[in-house]
Amino acid sequence: MTNAQAAAPTDTPRRGRPGYDRETLLRVCVDVFNLHGYDATSMGTLSGHLGISKSAIYHHVESKEEILEQALNRALDALEEVIASEDSAAVSDLERLEHVVRRTVFVLVEQMPYVTLLLRLRGNSDVELRALKRRRSITGQVAGFIERAQQEGSLRTDLSSRSAARLLLGMINSIVDWYKPEAGKSTGELADTVVALAFSGLRAP
Amino acid sequence: MTNAQAAAPTDTPRRGRPGYDRETLLRVCVDVFNLHGYDATSMGTLSGHLGISKSAIYHHVESKEEILEQALNRALDALEEVIASEDSAAVSDLERLEHVVRRTVFVLVEQMPYVTLLLRLRGNSDVELRALKRRRSITGQVAGFIERAQQEGSLRTDLSSRSAARLLLGMINSIVDWYKPEAGKSTGELADTVVALAFSGLRAP
Repeated sequence: MTNAQAAAPTDTPRRGRPGYDRETLLRVCVDVFNLHGYDATSMGTLSGHLGISKSAIYHHVESKEEILEQALNRALDALEEVIASEDSAAVSDLERLEHVVRRTVFVLVEQMPYVTLLLRLRGNSDVELRALKRRRSITGQVAGFIERAQQEGSLRTDLSSRSAARLLLGMINSIVDWYKPEAGKSTGELADTVVALAFSGLRAP
Repeated sequence: MTNAQAAAPTDTPRRGRPGYDRETLLRVCVDVFNLHGYDATSMGTLSGHLGISKSAIYHHVESKEEILEQALNRALDALEEVIASEDSAAVSDLERLEHVVRRTVFVLVEQMPYVTLLLRLRGNSDVELRALKRRRSITGQVAGFIERAQQEGSLRTDLSSRSAARLLLGMINSIVDWYKPEAGKSTGELADTVVALAFSGLRAP
């Protein structure tokens, strides 16, 4: 599908509702997937929520699975970019890991519906299995950051880097289940809390 | 439904498969819910996986929702028991919290399919909303344990007890997504890792 097609107004909107651009269509569909579950959502369900006909949806995408794939790519691209990004200010592997933790918190808040969809996948199709493979690769790379910081002596070495990566990411990923942005509270404050808990723990110094 | 009914053999098993006791039926249904999602699972899907007719399932339960409710009660009863249980050896609020963390890890490993189902609920029915309310109450009680340990001076006070409880439980709950019991590794070792990370963090001492 070309960008020109994506930007074109949809045909035959029902009940007088406006057509959707590709971005809004994707976002509404992801919200419906997160509400009912991807498997339980039919193109008919999406049509009802969007207020446009199924054929109008097919104007944008070939299938329900294409919507899923686009949504998962959005989450995974953003998470992989965090791993690949260099923190020019970091002078140690500990600081590189802290940078990854902080930026991952920001991705979760900014891309919350897409990451929520990713985290609830069950692996029931090739698209889901490919996404889960990319997710496992991210976990492996976070374990790599932890291992290097262990080797430089800044992190404790009595925990396996793999288990530590999974528990650390589990803590971070829980944000999509409970975090509600509040007036006067920034994502930076949330990231500070996560970094404090992850690196120093709950115990009083 | 009485226990006598539950213990009775199922009638008209299809394809020569044996009838189920209530316990096994519950476990198989929960595995199917976790595989496909509760909303996407019909009584027909359950019938196919169990290899018995729908009427044989209705011999055990009145509805799909009754199965869901029984499964959620199993997870929630076990988690609430942890909160209510007294650690007679604990001499501080810090030790009481550590006891809750350790025992919650054990419940997650021992009741993994039931807790997995609980953690993936979306709140699409009264049964789900009641379960989510009980889950929120557990989170609130864990926040209470954290707050008391902060007041006694054993936990840092620069984190809100509520955010700390959510991140801590997020870390623990992730276990259902990645933990596979290994030969020679005990649940106690997993609990040690979680306690070390939660209370002391990743940083080298």
